[in-house]
Amino acid sequence: MPTENLKKTEKSRVVRAPARGFYDRETAYGIIDSTSLCHVSYLIDGQPYVTPTCHWREGDHIYWHGSSASRMIRQSEGQPVCLAVTHLDGFVLARSAFHHSVNYRSVMLFGTPAKVEGEEKELSLKAFIEGLFPGRWDTLRPMKEKEIKATTVLAMPIDEGSAKIRAAPPVDDEEDYALPIWCGVIPLQTAVRPLEPDTRNLDNLELPAHVSGFKLD
Amino acid sequence: MPTENLKKTEKSRVVRAPARGFYDRETAYGIIDSTSLCHVSYLIDGQPYVTPTCHWREGDHIYWHGSSASRMIRQSEGQPVCLAVTHLDGFVLARSAFHHSVNYRSVMLFGTPAKVEGEEKELSLKAFIEGLFPGRWDTLRPMKEKEIKATTVLAMPIDEGSAKIRAAPPVDDEEDYALPIWCGVIPLQTAVRPLEPDTRNLDNLELPAHVSGFKLD
Repeated sequence: MPTENLKKTEKSRVVRAPARGFYDRETAYGIIDSTSLCHVSYLIDGQPYVTPTCHWREGDHIYWHGSSASRMIRQSEGQPVCLAVTHLDGFVLARSAFHHSVNYRSVMLFGTPAKVEGEEKELSLKAFIEGLFPGRWDTLRPMKEKEIKATTVLAMPIDEGSAKIRAAPPVDDEEDYALPIWCGVIPLQTAVRPLEPDTRNLDNLELPAHVSGFKLD
Repeated sequence: MPTENLKKTEKSRVVRAPARGFYDRETAYGIIDSTSLCHVSYLIDGQPYVTPTCHWREGDHIYWHGSSASRMIRQSEGQPVCLAVTHLDGFVLARSAFHHSVNYRSVMLFGTPAKVEGEEKELSLKAFIEGLFPGRWDTLRPMKEKEIKATTVLAMPIDEGSAKIRAAPPVDDEEDYALPIWCGVIPLQTAVRPLEPDTRNLDNLELPAHVSGFKLD
C-alpha cells in the first residue's frame, strides 16, 4: 500500500468540510472495502449522470465493470469521473432541528478510469468474485470468451480524493442541553438476512464456507 | 400524486436496461421514501462531482439541503443535476461468474433544483424532520433566524427519470443448472441497531414514540 495520503486537490477540497475530512489511505480503503456499492458520476454531452454500481479494490486501484454496451461504461472510460462510496451509519437526534445530523463514512475519489485489457481483465473479475466469496471462482463454470468480451472492466488509481466521517453523538448549542428533549443516535447497519437458496440447486449440495461464513466487514 | 409516469427521455433511456426499467411514480416513490440517503451529481467547471446527502419527498418534489456555503448546494441550484437513490438488496450467486449479480432498487432522476424561499423553507425542513420522526418538530428548540439563513433547501420536481429493480434468484444458462454449485441470494437489509442515548440527556426523560417506534420502511 502506498503510504502517501490522498491528494488534497482543489477538487477534493471544495466538497469536504475540513473538520470532518480524513485523507489517509487506510481510512479510505476501510470505507471502500466495507461495501460493494458505489456511485459513479460522469458526463454525457455535458449533462452529469450518476449510476450505482459495484466496485472492488486491488491495491491502490478501484475497479468497476459493466456491459461493454453500457453508456455508463463507455462514457466513463478515459474521461474524468467522480466516484463516491457511502455508508449511512445512523440518525443523530439533537435538541434543535439545526443540529440534527447523520453519522456516516464516505469516500469521494476523482480520476480517469482506463479499460483493463488482456489477461488482466479476467484476473480482475476473479479478484472481484474472490474478494466477496473466497474460493468460489474455481468452483464455477469457467468464463466463456464471449462473456469476457461482453464485459468491460474499468480501473482507476486511488490518488485524488478524500474520506469524510461523522461518528459522534449530537452536538448542541450549550444552552440547549438544559432542555428536556430525548437526544441520541439511532444507529443503522447493513445486515445479512437469511439465505435464499436457488430452488434449482441440485439435491444434497453442501453449503460452501464462502456462503455460510459470509459477513460484511 | 400525479398519475402520469416518469418521462422516458433520452437521458433516462441511456442508462436503464429496458428489461429492468420501471417508470410508474408509485414504484419510484416507494424507493425514494425507503431511505434518506441519495447521491447528487453536479458540475463544477465541467468536472462531474457526486455528493451523498439526505433527501426527503413532498408530493411530486424531492428535497435536499445543506449549508448555504456548500459548493454542492451552490453548484446545484439552477443547474442540471442527476440524483440517485439506491438500495443494495442482496448478492446473487450464480453458476458462472458472468451471471453473478446483485438485487437492488434504484431511482435516477434528472432535473434542475431551485431554492425553497420564504415561509416554505422552514416548512420544508419541518417536513424533513417530521417525515422521519413524527411529532418531534414541536418538541425542539425553535429554529433561529440565522440557522434558517445558514441553510439552503433545494427542491426538484420528480418528472424525468426512471426506476430500476432486480429482485430475483440467479438466472443461469440452461445447461449450467446441471452443475453441482450452490447458488442463491444473500439478502441484505438496513437494520436499526440499539439506540445510543446522549450521555447529556436529562434524567428521567421519556423515550419518545418517534424514537422507540422508529423503523425503516
